Amino acid sequence: MESAMRDTYEPTDRTVPTRSKDRAVYDRERVHALLDEAYLCHLGFVRDGAPVVLPTLYARVGERVYVHGSTGSRPLRMANGTPGGAATEGGEEPGLAVCLTVTHLDGLVLARSAFHHSMNYRSVVIHGTAHPVTDPEERRIALDALVDAVIPGRSRDSRPANPRELAATAVLGLDLAEVSAKVRTGPPVDEPEDMDLPYWAGVVPVVRSYGTPIPDDAMDPSIPLPEYLRDR
Amino acid sequence: MESAMRDTYEPTDRTVPTRSKDRAVYDRERVHALLDEAYLCHLGFVRDGAPVVLPTLYARVGERVYVHGSTGSRPLRMANGTPGGAATEGGEEPGLAVCLTVTHLDGLVLARSAFHHSMNYRSVVIHGTAHPVTDPEERRIALDALVDAVIPGRSRDSRPANPRELAATAVLGLDLAEVSAKVRTGPPVDEPEDMDLPYWAGVVPVVRSYGTPIPDDAMDPSIPLPEYLRDR
Repeated sequence: MESAMRDTYEPTDRTVPTRSKDRAVYDRERVHALLDEAYLCHLGFVRDGAPVVLPTLYARVGERVYVHGSTGSRPLRMANGTPGGAATEGGEEPGLAVCLTVTHLDGLVLARSAFHHSMNYRSVVIHGTAHPVTDPEERRIALDALVDAVIPGRSRDSRPANPRELAATAVLGLDLAEVSAKVRTGPPVDEPEDMDLPYWAGVVPVVRSYGTPIPDDAMDPSIPLPEYLRDR
Repeated sequence: MESAMRDTYEPTDRTVPTRSKDRAVYDRERVHALLDEAYLCHLGFVRDGAPVVLPTLYARVGERVYVHGSTGSRPLRMANGTPGGAATEGGEEPGLAVCLTVTHLDGLVLARSAFHHSMNYRSVVIHGTAHPVTDPEERRIALDALVDAVIPGRSRDSRPANPRELAATAVLGLDLAEVSAKVRTGPPVDEPEDMDLPYWAGVVPVVRSYGTPIPDDAMDPSIPLPEYLRDR
C-alpha cells in the first residue's frame, strides 16, 4: 500500500490557499514531520450551524490522526451520532465533519513597515470526517500513540487503561486525505523604498522548551526521573 | 460604561463545558489577562457547511478582539458578504459567525495511569459574529494593537501603513460577549489504588521563550537592537 502511495497529497479547493499560494506544501513526508513534531491541535466542528474550536491532543499513525476524549464530551458524542447533535448536521452516518489544525510558531518577523510585519510559522490543516474508532486493537494503538506523541516512550511506563477507563474513552480517527501545510520562513520582505528606514528589522525566534520536571509530592521520592524526561 | 459592567461574562449554553465544569472561568479580568498574554489564536468559521480553522494574530482592545488580513483572504471576504461565501450562510448582514480560541499550554501532566495523563493549560473560547471594521480611527487603533500585541511598543517604531496598504487590509472585530476560559493547573490526579505504582508522576513545565534576534542582512548594522526587544 505505502509503496503505491503518491508522494504528495492531492490539492483540493479547500487546501489551495486563497493567499500566499507559494507557501503551500503538499509533500507527504513534510506534512508527516510537521504533524509528528507537535501534539496539540485545534479541532474545529460545526454545532447548530456555528463553528466551535477546541484545543486537544492528537497523534498520527500512518495516514490517520487520532484525537480522544471522554465519551461524554460534545464532539465525541456528535461523532457517534448520539443525542447532542447529529454528526454532519443532517447526515445519518456516524462521523463528524472537522478541520484539524496544527501550528508551529517559529519566529516574529519585524519589517520596516507595520504592514509587512509577519510570522514565521509552519501549519498543517486537515479537512475531513472524523469517525469513532471501535476496533479494540486500533483503539489501543491510538491511545498509546496519544500518550507517546507527548512523551515518547511513556505509554510503556504507566499503568495501561483498564476496561472501565477504556469504556469511558472515545477515540476519533481522521484520514490524511485532504491535507495541506503552509510554511513561512526567512527575513522580512519590505518595499524597496523602505529599505533605508531607520527601524530595526529582522526575526525574533520563538522557542518552545521544557522546564525542570516537578515530581508529584505524593510520589515515592526514590523513583528516579525517567530517561525519556532527562533529554528535554 | 466600564464601571457599570459586570465582573463576569454571563455563561451561555455554548460557554458551559460539558466536561470539567469546575475548570470554567468567566471572570472578566482573568479572561482579559489570558487574552493579553498571547497573540496567536485559532479562528474557526463555517464554509459550505464545513468547519475551517486557521491560525491568525489577534489583539484585544477593551471588550473587543480584532483580527486582520488581506481583503482577498477567505474569512475576511466572507465577513464582508462578498462573493466567496455569504457571511453566516443564509444571512444577509455583513458578518461571519466565528469561534476564536486561544490556548496557553503550561505543562505536561504525567499520571501513574495512562488514562489520567493530562495537560496544564489555560484556554479562552470566544463565540460570536465578527464584523468588518470600517471606521478609520477604529481601524488605526486595531492595526496598532495587532502589531503591539506581538511586540509591545513596535507600532510606534515602524513605518505606518499608507493608504494603499490600508485599502488592502481588512479588519474584523468580535465583541467579548459569549466568552469563557478553561484552566487546569496542578499535579496529576490518580486513582487512590494507583498511588504506589512505581511510575514517575508529576508535571513537566512547558515554556515559550524567545531566541536571540536575528537582524536582517540588508539592514544598516549601526541600527541598535531596540529596547523593546532587549528584555525578551
